[in-house]
Amino acid sequence: MLRCDPNWGWGAQKALSVPGARGSLRGFMDSVNIGMIGGGTVGSGVVHALQQNAALLSSRIGIPLAIRRVAVKALDEPRPYPIKKSLLTTDWQQVVHDPQHHVIVELVGGTTLAKTIVLTALKLGKPVVTANKALLSAHGEELFATAARHGANLYYEASVAGGIPIIKTLREAFVGNRITHLYGIVNGTCNYILTRMTAEGAGFADVLADAQRLGYAEAEPSLDVDGFDAQHKVGILASLAHGFWVKPAQIHVEGIRHLTALDIQFAARLGYAIKLLGIIKRLPAPARSKTPNGARIQVSVYPALIPQSHVLASVSGVFNAVFVRGDIVGDTLFYGRGAGKDATASAVLSDLADAALDLKFGTAGRVPPFVPHERAGAVAPLAEVHTRYFVRLNVVDQPGVMAAVAQRLAAQQIGISSIIQPEGHEGDVVPIILMLHDASNRAMSRALAQISRLRVVKGAPVMIRVENFA
Amino acid sequence: MLRCDPNWGWGAQKALSVPGARGSLRGFMDSVNIGMIGGGTVGSGVVHALQQNAALLSSRIGIPLAIRRVAVKALDEPRPYPIKKSLLTTDWQQVVHDPQHHVIVELVGGTTLAKTIVLTALKLGKPVVTANKALLSAHGEELFATAARHGANLYYEASVAGGIPIIKTLREAFVGNRITHLYGIVNGTCNYILTRMTAEGAGFADVLADAQRLGYAEAEPSLDVDGFDAQHKVGILASLAHGFWVKPAQIHVEGIRHLTALDIQFAARLGYAIKLLGIIKRLPAPARSKTPNGARIQVSVYPALIPQSHVLASVSGVFNAVFVRGDIVGDTLFYGRGAGKDATASAVLSDLADAALDLKFGTAGRVPPFVPHERAGAVAPLAEVHTRYFVRLNVVDQPGVMAAVAQRLAAQQIGISSIIQPEGHEGDVVPIILMLHDASNRAMSRALAQISRLRVVKGAPVMIRVENFA
Repeated sequence: MLRCDPNWGWGAQKALSVPGARGSLRGFMDSVNIGMIGGGTVGSGVVHALQQNAALLSSRIGIPLAIRRVAVKALDEPRPYPIKKSLLTTDWQQVVHDPQHHVIVELVGGTTLAKTIVLTALKLGKPVVTANKALLSAHGEELFATAARHGANLYYEASVAGGIPIIKTLREAFVGNRITHLYGIVNGTCNYILTRMTAEGAGFADVLADAQRLGYAEAEPSLDVDGFDAQHKVGILASLAHGFWVKPAQIHVEGIRHLTALDIQFAARLGYAIKLLGIIKRLPAPARSKTPNGARIQVSVYPALIPQSHVLASVSGVFNAVFVRGDIVGDTLFYGRGAGKDATASAVLSDLADAALDLKFGTAGRVPPFVPHERAGAVAPLAEVHTRYFVRLNVVDQPGVMAAVAQRLAAQQIGISSIIQPEGHEGDVVPIILMLHDASNRAMSRALAQISRLRVVKGAPVMIRVENFA
Repeated sequence: MLRCDPNWGWGAQKALSVPGARGSLRGFMDSVNIGMIGGGTVGSGVVHALQQNAALLSSRIGIPLAIRRVAVKALDEPRPYPIKKSLLTTDWQQVVHDPQHHVIVELVGGTTLAKTIVLTALKLGKPVVTANKALLSAHGEELFATAARHGANLYYEASVAGGIPIIKTLREAFVGNRITHLYGIVNGTCNYILTRMTAEGAGFADVLADAQRLGYAEAEPSLDVDGFDAQHKVGILASLAHGFWVKPAQIHVEGIRHLTALDIQFAARLGYAIKLLGIIKRLPAPARSKTPNGARIQVSVYPALIPQSHVLASVSGVFNAVFVRGDIVGDTLFYGRGAGKDATASAVLSDLADAALDLKFGTAGRVPPFVPHERAGAVAPLAEVHTRYFVRLNVVDQPGVMAAVAQRLAAQQIGISSIIQPEGHEGDVVPIILMLHDASNRAMSRALAQISRLRVVKGAPVMIRVENFA
C-alpha cells in the first residue's frame, strides 16, 4: 500500500508502487503511458490538450501521463491538430497489446472495430477510456460485465455531453440522491438548428442546409436531427441514474424534422421555447401496481415546449445542458459544450486522471463504472406516460369545427386548457392552436387519430408535448 | 489489497479488509460509522437524507454508512428534521475520539470550536467532512497541511454552493484544464434580493425586510448582503482553481446595499441584469512583468452588470450558479441550490461516499484536498484590474456639465461608450448614465474622485462594473 506523503501532490515523481495493478502494470511505474486508438477530431484534441496541460495535470494528481502511441486508419490523414509522426501507427493490435501501455483510449467511433478494441483491452486487464456513446448504448451491458470480470475499469465521461461532467456528477456527486427527473439538451446540432429557427423565423430545411455549410451538421444529418444521437446518450444516462440497463429499443425517439417556424412562433407567443429533450423521469407508481418495488421510468427523446423562463430555455446554439432533479439536492443544471475536439478532450483527460489514480492506488473498482442498484425497475411505454400537449390543426373556417374537435378530445377524457385562433390568417383554412391538459400518450394518440379523420381538418395535426418540470 | 469482485457493487456486504487505513480503522469493517458534530439545519438534513437513501447509497458504493452519534449544543433544541434521542450527546470530544467513529462530520459552523474539532479529528488520522466555508477560508492552509501530515483527507464539497458539485468538478472533472475565468453567483440571499428588486422595482431595504420575514435573510444580514459569505466561498474556489492559497484579506469585496431600483432599471434598459458575482480571473501578463512565470489573478466580489442574454442572468431567486471557463473545456455553468438543509446534505453525502471509499480502499490521499500547483501565482490588487463601468451621476441640469465630466474621464484616459440622459426626470437635478470603456480600477477611482468634487454633481456617483465575459 502506498502511504501518504504530505508532499506527494507537489509533483516530485518517485517510482510509484502499484501493488494492486494487474499483469503488465504490476511493479514500479514512473508514468502512466497511454495507448490511443483513433487520431481524428477527438484524438488529436486529446494529444493537443495534453501537450498544453500535461505538466499542470501531473502536478495536480501527482503522476505524469504520456501518450506513447496513437493508432490511426491512415498515417497521412488531415487532423484538426497535428500529431507527431513518431507517435503514429496503423496497428491498433500492437497499441492495445504493448505491455508498456497502461491505459487504452478508444476514440475510433462506431460499434464494430471499437467493440473489439475495448473488449480486447479489458480482457488484458487494462483500463479503457472511451467517448463512444453508440458503443455504450448498444453494448454497454456486455462491456461493463467484461470490465468487472477482468478487474479493469471502463471510463466514459466523454461519451455524453462532451465537456459537461455529467457522468461523474451522477455517479459520485449525486451518489446520495435518487434521480427523479433528468432533462437533457444533449444534441448540439439540433439545439443550434432550433435556436436559429427561433431567432430568424426560418424553416428547418433552410437552417439545416446552412448548418451543414458551416460544419454544425453532418452531410448525412439523420443521426442528429432524427434524435438517434440523443437516444444513445439518454440510454447511458438512464442506465446510470436508475441502475438497470436501458436498451436503445426501449427509448421512444422523435426528431425535429417536422417542426415548423410557425409552431416555434406560436409557442413563443404562449411563453414557451421548443427544445429537443432527452427525458428520464421516475413515474408515480400506478394505483394497482404489479411490481410494487420496481420503479417505472419514462425514457424518451422528443421536442417539447418548455417555459421561456426555465433555465433550460436559455441554453442556445451548440451548447448542451442537463437538468437533474435529485430527491435530496433538488433542481440542478449542468451546461457546456457537448461536442467538439476540445470540450470532449477535457472529459477524456478527466477520465485519464481517474484511470491514472486508480492505477497508482490499485483501485480499479473504487467507483464501479455501472452499478445495478434498482434492478427491479423498468422502462414504461410512452403510451402510459402522461404529458401536456400543444396541438396545431389546419381547419376549415366554418361553424361547428371546434365542437367536433372538442368532442374527440372529450371522448378520450382530455381537457382543453386554452384555444388560440390567431388573427391575420386568411383563406378557407385557418390554424387553431390547442393547449391540452395532462393526458396519457395513448389517449392523445387515439384522439389525434380521430381528429385527423374529421372532414374539416386538413393535413396531419401537429402535436408537440409540453414539459412544465412539475 | 481488496481485489475486485464482479458482484461487489450489488450490495452484498462482506467484512471489508481495509489494510491501508490507520489506527482505529485498521482491520475489518462492516460499515463506515459516522460521528457528527452539529445537529442543526444541515446536520439534521444529513441525518434525514441518510434515513431516506442509505440503502441506495450503500448499493452504489458497496459499503454501508451509518450515523452513530451526533454531538449537539443542547439535546432539546428545535430541529428542521428530528434526530433520534439515542444518537444525541453534548460531548463532542467523545464523538471525535470514539475509535468506532471512522469519519467525523463537522457542521457546527464558526471558526473557533469548529477549528478545534477538525484539527483534533485530523490529528487522530480520521477523515473529516465539513461544510464550513468561514473556517476553510480563514484557516484552510493550516487545515490542509494538518490533513496531509496525518494522512487523513479533508472533504469540503458542502462548503461552497451547497448542492452544486463545484469542488469535485474543479478538482477532478476539470483536472486537465487551466481555469482562466470563474464567475459565481454564490450567495442565495443576495440573488433573491436582486431578483425581487428587478422584478418588482422595489428598493433594497424593503426587499431585505421581506426576505428576513420569509426566512431568506438573517436578522443580522451583513454576512450575506455585504458580500462576506461570498468572499469565503470565492477564496476557497480561487485557491483550488489556481493552486496557491488566497487569503480573505486579498479579496476585494463590495456588497449590494448601495444598489437602487433605479440602477437596476437603467441597467435593464441597456440590456443588462445586475448580479452579485464572485470573480476569479487570470489576468493577461503585463508588458514588463517582474514575475514572468507567476499568474496574476483577480479575486473579487462585487455587483456587476451582465448581459441579459448571458446564461448567468437567468439564475434567479435563491439559486446559485458557477460559470467556469477552462482553457480546454471552454464555457461551462453549474446551477443549483446553494444553501438549505437538503441541498447541502446532498454535498455532505457525496463527501461521505468518497470518504467511505477512501477508507475501504486505503486511499486517503488519492485526490489531495488541495494541491499547490501554481505556487508562483499571486492575487492582483483590484486597482490593476481593467473592467468596464456603468456610472450614474446626479447633475445640475445646465450647459457644460457633460463637458466637465468628460474632461475628468479623459484625464484618466477613460473612454465613454454611451451616455443616457433619461427623459421624464424633472427638476434642477437630473440623472445621467455613462457606460465607460475598459479602464483600470485605479484610473476609475481617480476619475470618480474628481467627478464627485464637481460643483454640478450632487451626491456620490454610483459606479457598478460591467462584465461582458470576454
